[in-house]
Amino acid sequence: MKIDFSTSKRIIFGNGEFRNIPEYIKGLGSRVFFIRGNNPFYGKEFFELIETLNLEITYFIVNKEPDIFLLISAVKLARENNCEFVIGFGGGSVIDTGKAVAALLNNEGDLMDYLEVVGKGLPLKNPSKPYIAIPSTAGTGSEVTRNAVIDVPEKNIKVSMRNAYMLPTIALVDPELTLDLPPQITATTGMDAFVQVLEPYVCNSPNPMVDMFCRDAIPRAPVNLLKAYRDGSNMEARENMAWVSLLGGLSLANAKLGAVHGFAGPIGGMFHAQHGAICACLLPGVMQVNVETLIKRDAGSSALKRYHEISTWITGDAKAHIGDGVLYVEELCKNLKIPRLSEMGITKEDFPQIVEKSKNSSSMKGNPVHLSEEELTRILEQSY
Amino acid sequence: MKIDFSTSKRIIFGNGEFRNIPEYIKGLGSRVFFIRGNNPFYGKEFFELIETLNLEITYFIVNKEPDIFLLISAVKLARENNCEFVIGFGGGSVIDTGKAVAALLNNEGDLMDYLEVVGKGLPLKNPSKPYIAIPSTAGTGSEVTRNAVIDVPEKNIKVSMRNAYMLPTIALVDPELTLDLPPQITATTGMDAFVQVLEPYVCNSPNPMVDMFCRDAIPRAPVNLLKAYRDGSNMEARENMAWVSLLGGLSLANAKLGAVHGFAGPIGGMFHAQHGAICACLLPGVMQVNVETLIKRDAGSSALKRYHEISTWITGDAKAHIGDGVLYVEELCKNLKIPRLSEMGITKEDFPQIVEKSKNSSSMKGNPVHLSEEELTRILEQSY
Repeated sequence: MKIDFSTSKRIIFGNGEFRNIPEYIKGLGSRVFFIRGNNPFYGKEFFELIETLNLEITYFIVNKEPDIFLLISAVKLARENNCEFVIGFGGGSVIDTGKAVAALLNNEGDLMDYLEVVGKGLPLKNPSKPYIAIPSTAGTGSEVTRNAVIDVPEKNIKVSMRNAYMLPTIALVDPELTLDLPPQITATTGMDAFVQVLEPYVCNSPNPMVDMFCRDAIPRAPVNLLKAYRDGSNMEARENMAWVSLLGGLSLANAKLGAVHGFAGPIGGMFHAQHGAICACLLPGVMQVNVETLIKRDAGSSALKRYHEISTWITGDAKAHIGDGVLYVEELCKNLKIPRLSEMGITKEDFPQIVEKSKNSSSMKGNPVHLSEEELTRILEQSY
Repeated sequence: MKIDFSTSKRIIFGNGEFRNIPEYIKGLGSRVFFIRGNNPFYGKEFFELIETLNLEITYFIVNKEPDIFLLISAVKLARENNCEFVIGFGGGSVIDTGKAVAALLNNEGDLMDYLEVVGKGLPLKNPSKPYIAIPSTAGTGSEVTRNAVIDVPEKNIKVSMRNAYMLPTIALVDPELTLDLPPQITATTGMDAFVQVLEPYVCNSPNPMVDMFCRDAIPRAPVNLLKAYRDGSNMEARENMAWVSLLGGLSLANAKLGAVHGFAGPIGGMFHAQHGAICACLLPGVMQVNVETLIKRDAGSSALKRYHEISTWITGDAKAHIGDGVLYVEELCKNLKIPRLSEMGITKEDFPQIVEKSKNSSSMKGNPVHLSEEELTRILEQSY
């Protein structure tokens, strides 16, 4: 038993909690940098409320996964306007942008000084400016993680800016704010959340803190995701998915992931398909190849026992076999109309390069079993 | 579903983690205020390690539950020596002292400015100085709570200094450090931990975050406590109890408690008996009177269902009735040689005053059912 756990200073969860925003911003100042997505219909009531608060608001719109250029301009604008705190309201791209801006508002230098891989990777010297992260999707859990994923277009890769200071000051999760999500985004972001509680539970170094989150979340995920997909106004299903998403963020930030995320980063960098769709599409194949390989090479593994537990939880059948769980997830993806890799602009000729880029990714190293190139390719073929 | 969750910036748990202290104090400065208990035999290796680290150490010994005078002298000493950070290694009294000192090292004014009830109750303006809290007991969970309990001897009461800034910067929980605890302290502190995961689970406003902690901890507590009591060198039992204690702190800091703690504060103030012993001694009576009262007044209550769950978990018998759980806890107290109220210097003549002081305490307000004075008295009689 060993854990090293960090999270946002304060996590607030509840229906209608966004209406308490005046209380949460008390004492943070009057000049706010407000980041949002580009759909004016989401969270209308929230925007109207913000306008009444006597703040000097600098708006910034994020309409794609943040890349270096978008971030540099966001930081420039926030610094020029001497913003005192940051609010991010949106999906993972918005929330991640907020982390980088809040950090650079209180640290000298440029974005490149702090980026992994393509930059200098320096640690932040000072804590970030206060940052309130408010997700509009039930998906990434980014409100309780300490990194921002950033596109580097000219290199077709994604890199991270990562620091404990980048944990948002307040993670404000209000399921009501996800009521407007259309079915397709509900499906892909929800599957992202599901994968984020599933992979840490079977990863090669689980920990008892994260286990609690996963055990609570996994049984809730598929059934509530289907309900929210079929009827976006189902408040109970939305609430459950927002909860799963939050637990997913807590889990991935404090344990390892696995092959789904090991692939998803590189594929996302190469093809710019939606992260949640990539994860969802890969999940059944990863489950199957992992289970087959574990049976072959490590039949007594605790990860196999955990895959079995998961199968009983998600099927709701105490007698379910591991295979039933895999079939259930395959069926779930079909019901949610998750696209196949072949529908994301990927061809079989890309497989070797995807495998090459993925096989040593940090998430891949958390997979419950080491997979050969042949086994990794088999996952891609099953997801094609 | 509604939660408002805060905890220490970083929670580290694991056997032998205390040996990594050099890493955890990096960057915090060289002048440390080091608070400890008065038994020189506990944590010998840890003290020796600290001495090698090239720090300017100001030692401070806490040998009882902290009172106002002890705290004032601790703060004075820490300020005089310009201490840059604080380490507290000990039981709840030591850990709580550290919280108050770390807060007042970075905030002007006197202790009385910040105390509830007997002082001005002002909020802290600045974050505390960095504080590493390292429990030597598996009991209070104080390393992840935001208040310090302080004796006010001339009024026979205990008050709190409470602020989110008082959450220790790092909670470092190392089960190895509890190996030296003698059986009697293992028993009373362990029962304190058990009560702290039990009361939040049945309280009148449970929340799903805390529920996870309680579900994980409750089944572990009694069986491992008995093992650690009978064989203090049982590492697995020590590890489990340290884990239960940590989860207890997380639970009580983020949900409500109940009648056991509703009584324990006032009784502790009046009679200076050990907190864990008071809690343990009251638990069977509180469970029984709560269950009887719920059956009478609110038979459909979810707290009753939860008491039933608890009974099956702790007895290890899926068919156990609620009453079996109460009997099990009674038996547990006998096996651990927990003293009765009558052995703590309390007489039946004190009951009216205890009830009077307890009936409106903040913990009592979290009890799953409102108890009349007669019902409260019945609990005391059963614990006598």
